[in-house]
Amino acid sequence: MPENAWELVAAGMADLRALQGAATLLTWDQETYLPKAGAEARGEQLSALQGLYHEKLTAPALGDAILAAEKALRAEGQPDEAGPERAGGMGGTPPADPPSSRHAALRALRFDRDRAVKVPARLVRELAREQSAALVAWREAREQDRFDRFAPHLERLLALRREQVQAIGVPAGGELYDVLLDGYEEGMRVARLEPLFQQLQGWLVPLVERLAARPPPPDPFAGRRFDPEQQWQLTLEVLAAMGFDLDAGRQDRSIHPFTLGLDPRDVRLTTHLHEEAPLSALFSTLHEGGHGLYEQGLPVAHRRTFLCAAASLGLHESQSRLWENLVGRSRPFWRWLLPRLQQRFPALAGVDPDAFHRAVNRVERTLIRTESDEVTYNLHVALRFELELGMLRGTLQVKDLPAAWDDGMQRLLGVRPHRAAEGVLQDIHWAWGELGYFPTYTVGNLYAASLFAAARTALPGLDGDLAAGRLLPLRDWLREHVHRHGRALPAEELVRRATGRGLQDGDFRAYLEAKYGALAP
Amino acid sequence: MPENAWELVAAGMADLRALQGAATLLTWDQETYLPKAGAEARGEQLSALQGLYHEKLTAPALGDAILAAEKALRAEGQPDEAGPERAGGMGGTPPADPPSSRHAALRALRFDRDRAVKVPARLVRELAREQSAALVAWREAREQDRFDRFAPHLERLLALRREQVQAIGVPAGGELYDVLLDGYEEGMRVARLEPLFQQLQGWLVPLVERLAARPPPPDPFAGRRFDPEQQWQLTLEVLAAMGFDLDAGRQDRSIHPFTLGLDPRDVRLTTHLHEEAPLSALFSTLHEGGHGLYEQGLPVAHRRTFLCAAASLGLHESQSRLWENLVGRSRPFWRWLLPRLQQRFPALAGVDPDAFHRAVNRVERTLIRTESDEVTYNLHVALRFELELGMLRGTLQVKDLPAAWDDGMQRLLGVRPHRAAEGVLQDIHWAWGELGYFPTYTVGNLYAASLFAAARTALPGLDGDLAAGRLLPLRDWLREHVHRHGRALPAEELVRRATGRGLQDGDFRAYLEAKYGALAP
Repeated sequence: MPENAWELVAAGMADLRALQGAATLLTWDQETYLPKAGAEARGEQLSALQGLYHEKLTAPALGDAILAAEKALRAEGQPDEAGPERAGGMGGTPPADPPSSRHAALRALRFDRDRAVKVPARLVRELAREQSAALVAWREAREQDRFDRFAPHLERLLALRREQVQAIGVPAGGELYDVLLDGYEEGMRVARLEPLFQQLQGWLVPLVERLAARPPPPDPFAGRRFDPEQQWQLTLEVLAAMGFDLDAGRQDRSIHPFTLGLDPRDVRLTTHLHEEAPLSALFSTLHEGGHGLYEQGLPVAHRRTFLCAAASLGLHESQSRLWENLVGRSRPFWRWLLPRLQQRFPALAGVDPDAFHRAVNRVERTLIRTESDEVTYNLHVALRFELELGMLRGTLQVKDLPAAWDDGMQRLLGVRPHRAAEGVLQDIHWAWGELGYFPTYTVGNLYAASLFAAARTALPGLDGDLAAGRLLPLRDWLREHVHRHGRALPAEELVRRATGRGLQDGDFRAYLEAKYGALAP
Repeated sequence: MPENAWELVAAGMADLRALQGAATLLTWDQETYLPKAGAEARGEQLSALQGLYHEKLTAPALGDAILAAEKALRAEGQPDEAGPERAGGMGGTPPADPPSSRHAALRALRFDRDRAVKVPARLVRELAREQSAALVAWREAREQDRFDRFAPHLERLLALRREQVQAIGVPAGGELYDVLLDGYEEGMRVARLEPLFQQLQGWLVPLVERLAARPPPPDPFAGRRFDPEQQWQLTLEVLAAMGFDLDAGRQDRSIHPFTLGLDPRDVRLTTHLHEEAPLSALFSTLHEGGHGLYEQGLPVAHRRTFLCAAASLGLHESQSRLWENLVGRSRPFWRWLLPRLQQRFPALAGVDPDAFHRAVNRVERTLIRTESDEVTYNLHVALRFELELGMLRGTLQVKDLPAAWDDGMQRLLGVRPHRAAEGVLQDIHWAWGELGYFPTYTVGNLYAASLFAAARTALPGLDGDLAAGRLLPLRDWLREHVHRHGRALPAEELVRRATGRGLQDGDFRAYLEAKYGALAP
């Protein structure tokens, strides 16, 4: 292989990754430490960096180098097998980029580049401009509870997204929405998701109906206040137990918790502290900590390439939801955590462990997705998927969206919003122009259940470990089967290798039924 | 003027400014919140951004656009007069880039670009590589007190700098060192500085001799501890009084205090807190706050252009030293500050204000520049300037540097280092490859004295204001005469307009003699 072509590609990727890292830090800082008056300049800096990233990614010279490197790779007859797992484990000699990881990195780069090249610069700028305008309009519309203020923006965003999708090109036998999906969940198709969501709803709707009818468990936190500093210390204790390396990452406070990885050795989580609700910080840290472990587990030997990234948004979400729900709301984990909570908050000393476990697993039909429990959550997502699909297919007009939303809520969750702000205007995603993003939440929940089931089989002592706060065996299993592969495999293929099964709802159903059966009051 | 050429230039500058802003945040974060293990990736990100900056700055298309814009400007007959002061003050209509500021921005861009274009990419990379290596070697050498470990690196850096200087080209009638000076203090020449330093030494050496012979004032802080949180609050109180806008900037802690401006509305200071020495944080905040006010006062309407930057390092330093020394160590300022200090630290209640004032103005012959007082400081700088000049002129070999250093200290300050770590290895600058930087410290001290003298004339109530903690009139005078001009004028021209005098030591001498005469014990 002409070292030159690969070197050009590698240098290009390194620059792109550095730009990405810089943009990531600018974003992290925006949500944590940015002075109030700095917002305008920050917006300009971020959009300039995005422009430079796009320019670099679509540079013709990079395209030529990719072609040359691909040709050389084919000439070598390199098997289509990803190899980051081989790097680093080669003893004394430095991991000299095994060709198989070159292949995987090239593939990822080509995928991103092909999408970017096809979209004219004018459209990229128009999208960016309309996204900014839509975001402002959405905030106002939500405050004033007036969907009509947001509707024209959503219409324009939808039109621009359609244009973008057509520029990229619909895959054979596919539809417009597939192209959007590809941007978040590479290779995922409506033809897979639509029946899956139908099937999910088929058993979730009656399950929710049954569980939500149970009398609500008493809330052990009601009417109490919990020292934020103690809460903070507890979240750090949990992160340490999870094996999140605080020398290679940090936790800060922000209004909306998030995780950003600049590099596997520089991963930033945030959480929020509410004096009256200590579990809010706790579950947020478990969730973000799950994302954070994925970022820290990415193949650091390939940090300068496109291999060092998550395989998909859904797979990323599977990691956060696994720690938040399958670990964090489990009976064994609370056996470990409850005494620690009680030690920091002696007022909780008298509370019964089972009552606690029930309290953190309350199933409730609510209006707001982000506050919903693990059982109802996917019905919120199903609604958004259905509506987005309708908009892309042209069977749902933006003006009819509020009514469709409210009817859908009624049908799926048995509740009806009284205000657009708690209905169709509740999520920020559409204002960002993100269409096709929502289903990755459910993909993540399903993958989480499958991965946890597989881990349980592989680690027979798992429950005992969780009950003793020994969380490293689980982290290491995830690192081995998920994290260290980076973007070497499509997410579903990776899950299939780890669990023996692709995307399906069987594990999730089994998990919910077992858990909420046992939880019968 | 063909709007197109200017638009191309403006877009190029905006990208460059954004890259600069991003690199600045990466640097700030590196010194404040970066996880330990993130250092390697951070180094890569920073060097990639620097590479991209260089690539963008030297892009041929930008060169063509600059030429076209310059030609159009000449055709318009635009007078060579800077105009950012006109922007923003034009009432309701947005400041539509008055041509004169275009001219000034173009000039600044051309200056930076011309220097960058002349240096081959290979040399840039070699310098960066050798700087990294030299930094590591310097730390080791300092720890082990062995100059010979650092010497080969300094030799290589010196050779590379000579090569760089020759590539850029020595100005007519000038010498190599002039080109280095130009990188920090545009337009400054050895022919100006060398006699000035000679003159300074002529009266500073005997003055130091006289002042250092006085019995040292008692130290009111000795043997006490001062709550860091109270220290922190006091620094914030001082920043607020100075008019540093904490909505458009912030203060954090770091090992070595510094100031970085991402934008006039996003300026980051740091300070350090020492429990036993509360004045350390206080003077560091006054110093960095002075830098910070300059950054906040830059012409924000031109934030996306090269006009929105300091005129020179020396002028920047004049702002920090003015607040640290001319304000911060003055009798009136302590009349305001002392009660505030005593309120937070009641143990200091009994101390006499004059004793305090003397304690913060102790003149002492010490080995370390960064710990030296305002009288001896410039002798430390004079030594470095003399040695650098010798190295560039070839009259001083690197191997002879330690002896030359020690002899120079003896001659100028009457003290002699016993170890290289407290002598020739004390500063980080040469390890960074920064030659020509040191003299800007003295330029800053001289400008500070001139500007303060002019402010005193313009603001007859200044002493009364300082004594009452009314620092805004002084800030506003500096904003008007220094900050808001950005890079529109060469630093000396700007000082001349503000004070009626260029770079000279008369104001500084008058200041020291008046102050330390009055301070006679």
